[in-house]
Amino acid sequence: MKEITASVAAILIADTPDTFVTRRLPETRLEFGGIPGDRHFGVTFGADSRQKMYPRGTEILNRRQITVVSEEDCARIAENLGIPTVLPEWLGANLLIGGFPDLTSLTLGSRILLPSGAGLICMGENLPCLHPGEEIEKNYDVQEHPRLAARFVKAAYKRRGIVCAVECPGTIKVGDAAKVLINDYANPMQ
Amino acid sequence: MKEITASVAAILIADTPDTFVTRRLPETRLEFGGIPGDRHFGVTFGADSRQKMYPRGTEILNRRQITVVSEEDCARIAENLGIPTVLPEWLGANLLIGGFPDLTSLTLGSRILLPSGAGLICMGENLPCLHPGEEIEKNYDVQEHPRLAARFVKAAYKRRGIVCAVECPGTIKVGDAAKVLINDYANPMQ
Repeated sequence: MKEITASVAAILIADTPDTFVTRRLPETRLEFGGIPGDRHFGVTFGADSRQKMYPRGTEILNRRQITVVSEEDCARIAENLGIPTVLPEWLGANLLIGGFPDLTSLTLGSRILLPSGAGLICMGENLPCLHPGEEIEKNYDVQEHPRLAARFVKAAYKRRGIVCAVECPGTIKVGDAAKVLINDYANPMQ
Repeated sequence: MKEITASVAAILIADTPDTFVTRRLPETRLEFGGIPGDRHFGVTFGADSRQKMYPRGTEILNRRQITVVSEEDCARIAENLGIPTVLPEWLGANLLIGGFPDLTSLTLGSRILLPSGAGLICMGENLPCLHPGEEIEKNYDVQEHPRLAARFVKAAYKRRGIVCAVECPGTIKVGDAAKVLINDYANPMQ
């Protein structure tokens, strides 16, 4: 098991009606189910188009409680799109991590541990969908930066971060050290 | 995503006081948290020696609700130990699957779907511990088959099955077809 230390650059919540776009919080409490008040909060949730093996709306275990992106991934997506910045808000991310460029390829079962004792467990790569691209497009001049929405999925390929579940509740603050325990599939953590 | 069909050869519950050894049921209902009445049942549980990143007893998400082994893995462990059979009961397994020899290497995030609509999600490989070896040893003549307990961990290496969480509740019956959706890390399911 490899271990690296990154840092919590931003904490964000999706609690604005009718949008997945998130807003920043200086700190919050991670509970079983995610961030209370966030649109993805819940130990269970209704299956959507991502889980086609279940009828839509079926109550299933929520493995997409918290989405995490890295500053490095955001910078690379911006570079691929030829724009100055991509904000985690526009991606609907809940956590922005700095100092861990390989976040998107973090193995399932890896942990992100916070100083409070709280812990997240990586449930896999987040796949790009169209909505963040549309949000990015809204924030730039369409003449100067054409087709941002259409170009987003390719620009964000393998740069879209991960989804996590809360493994252990506790507080999280901007500036926290985030200890990442990387699960080695050949010699797995339990 | 690759898909294969296996079958439910046995369903087992650990509900006998003071032992992890399981006993067979013809059918049961899988709930969020596992098999009601089973010693590993619970959406959360207390961290144990396997999760050393948390203080012992800390309430954490339970990813080890259901342990699954394959008939082929049991047969191979028995062969490695030079004994006629290894029963899933002795391993404390909750499910015995037939027709899927590669069960232990099933990728995290893979699903096992049952005809009722119930679904399990693979949370990783189960690692051999000493107790099943001690249980196997109790069931054989120690003169004829010496050191079974001590030899178990090596004999069961990469043959110890997987741990799962219940992703979608529902009934499960012996003889059920078990559709296995294999998660491809390079092109993951959500």
